[in-house]
Amino acid sequence: MSDRSGAVAPGGRLAPRVHGTVRIVGAGLLGASIGHALSALGVDVALADTSPAQLRLAIDYGAGRAARADDRPGLVIVAVPPDVTADVIERELVAHPDAVVTDVASVKLEPLRALRERGVDLTHYIGSHPLAGRERGGAISARADIFIGRPWVVCRDEETSATDLALVEGLALDLGATPIEMSPEEHDRSVALVSHVPQLVASLLAGRFVGAPDGSLRLAGQGVRDTTRIAASAPELWVQILGANAAPVVDVLDALAADLSSVADALRAPDAPGARRAVADTIRRGNEGVELLPGKHGQNRRFENVVVMVDDTPGQLGRLFGELGELEVNVEDLRLEHSPGAQFGLAEISVVPSAVRPAVEGLEARGWKIASTTND
Amino acid sequence: MSDRSGAVAPGGRLAPRVHGTVRIVGAGLLGASIGHALSALGVDVALADTSPAQLRLAIDYGAGRAARADDRPGLVIVAVPPDVTADVIERELVAHPDAVVTDVASVKLEPLRALRERGVDLTHYIGSHPLAGRERGGAISARADIFIGRPWVVCRDEETSATDLALVEGLALDLGATPIEMSPEEHDRSVALVSHVPQLVASLLAGRFVGAPDGSLRLAGQGVRDTTRIAASAPELWVQILGANAAPVVDVLDALAADLSSVADALRAPDAPGARRAVADTIRRGNEGVELLPGKHGQNRRFENVVVMVDDTPGQLGRLFGELGELEVNVEDLRLEHSPGAQFGLAEISVVPSAVRPAVEGLEARGWKIASTTND
Repeated sequence: MSDRSGAVAPGGRLAPRVHGTVRIVGAGLLGASIGHALSALGVDVALADTSPAQLRLAIDYGAGRAARADDRPGLVIVAVPPDVTADVIERELVAHPDAVVTDVASVKLEPLRALRERGVDLTHYIGSHPLAGRERGGAISARADIFIGRPWVVCRDEETSATDLALVEGLALDLGATPIEMSPEEHDRSVALVSHVPQLVASLLAGRFVGAPDGSLRLAGQGVRDTTRIAASAPELWVQILGANAAPVVDVLDALAADLSSVADALRAPDAPGARRAVADTIRRGNEGVELLPGKHGQNRRFENVVVMVDDTPGQLGRLFGELGELEVNVEDLRLEHSPGAQFGLAEISVVPSAVRPAVEGLEARGWKIASTTND
Repeated sequence: MSDRSGAVAPGGRLAPRVHGTVRIVGAGLLGASIGHALSALGVDVALADTSPAQLRLAIDYGAGRAARADDRPGLVIVAVPPDVTADVIERELVAHPDAVVTDVASVKLEPLRALRERGVDLTHYIGSHPLAGRERGGAISARADIFIGRPWVVCRDEETSATDLALVEGLALDLGATPIEMSPEEHDRSVALVSHVPQLVASLLAGRFVGAPDGSLRLAGQGVRDTTRIAASAPELWVQILGANAAPVVDVLDALAADLSSVADALRAPDAPGARRAVADTIRRGNEGVELLPGKHGQNRRFENVVVMVDDTPGQLGRLFGELGELEVNVEDLRLEHSPGAQFGLAEISVVPSAVRPAVEGLEARGWKIASTTND
């Protein structure tokens, strides 16, 4: 097993913003990953988990030490499944009245509602949500670097003191994440739109392939593969997330169902007046929406694509990227497309517009075949 | 402008299967691309287009010569927009009674229905559809290699002679494509499922981002970016395609709407008996469906992923792939993820399972940070 703490946040070179003992309850993927990152910064991390095996694994891999009854944490991080988050937050607030308690659950309103209903004093509770994760869960998949460059939502309210807020935002910064303040309602509506509903849509679309005639799926190309990629996600966690954020998810689903029904109606009478217009508007609105998603480096920078033919043999991509390096062309993004049945592929390279000409001319001079560029 | 005929089909080394004069009507992306590929094989290509400018461009770039009144083509390829495909097929069948006429429209039943309605003799007509394309259209974007390794659907019927069929399938093979025989109905249902509905779903989902609070979209990650990537497609052609394949598209949309409504109902009462089960079944069915899509090389081969941290500077990917080449690790697929705000990225490399250990050990020995592997 490699050293998981090797890649620390950019802030890792400085003294950490969090200090004293940090208690982490739940040593799964997120809890153990936070533990690795904080331990690498020299913070005293006290870990607790209802599963002794999971706790042992996290400690063995360097996420921290076992929590003790006499720990006096200044910060408690609750990193347990959504359905027990409220219970654990309540218990930790009572057990550590001087500590700030935060959680990292991917739904923010439901635990807060449960805590308010029980009359829990929430003065020192600040909900948060790092938009980070991996396809596999558990302490064994934990990595210190999964937060770097990702948004970390922090839900302050009127009761939140500036000192408490600084501690939770400091945690995000220590781990290389970007703190974003939002209300729990805003957070839950946002993740419904950009995470929970896209997951359901991908799952529903891919679900339609089950039982399709074999031949149909042979016609699938890169477009549908991208559209359904996240349909491969594991069901267990998603059932909890979707259940805990049901109302905002249903709102987006209902709006989407209405849009879907409009375009289906237009296609039921494709020659009726307005039908073509309705279909065109659907595609155009999609054009507009996809442009609104943040690109890399958090900006809406636009890149041009250069598509290069690459033999499907070891070393070819190395030669390609080596030569792009010599040409001082920085590759902003890359996608490989393999031709089914053919022993070569197409490497679609995204570069800043000014790099298209040097890339194409330089690569062609070195014998590469350029399949296309977006600014031919 | 580079030589577009450089990359010929694997069959290009042998004598082409098509012979004599091939007439191509419509010198847009597909028509001109076929012209480039056939011209590179030494076939006499006669081009026609209602736009003199488009025709001139295609000829200047080497897609063929201008058609003449005394041409005696053995094969006519109709490559015009869907809404005029039937008209042009009819005219060509009449003008060239000894030729086999095919078309490359992305919908197969609608033109056939129109032709039958008019009582056209369809003995020598064989509809076909190469599943190839590019994001940009027109003769200026044409490339000889866009068909290589792609499926090319050929719609024979009872009237089709073996000789005629061999000619159209020979065309597909000459261009490096894989001919797949299907009925027009099967074809249209298949593309509705794996192309037309995924396009609409991506557009509808991305359309929901329009007017969303700014902050919401800051939480977007790679999942939703993949799910909505094809929402960037141009509206003009899609309006025609969806209109011409309306009935099969509506069938899939209706089924999808029913699935969507079931899961929305389950989430409306997330604590009701069976609700969690219904949500879990949706995600599980999606797992199953996405597994059915063909992978690279037309197979369902499974790869393992190795995620490597890469500085966002020229030459880093080159060094990485160069070293993977030295390690004799063949990269099957690759995805780059950039951390918004951070000047480095993660390169997710897919390799055959037996290559994971040599890749990880070899890269770590050379100083690379492995962020994760799928078989930790």
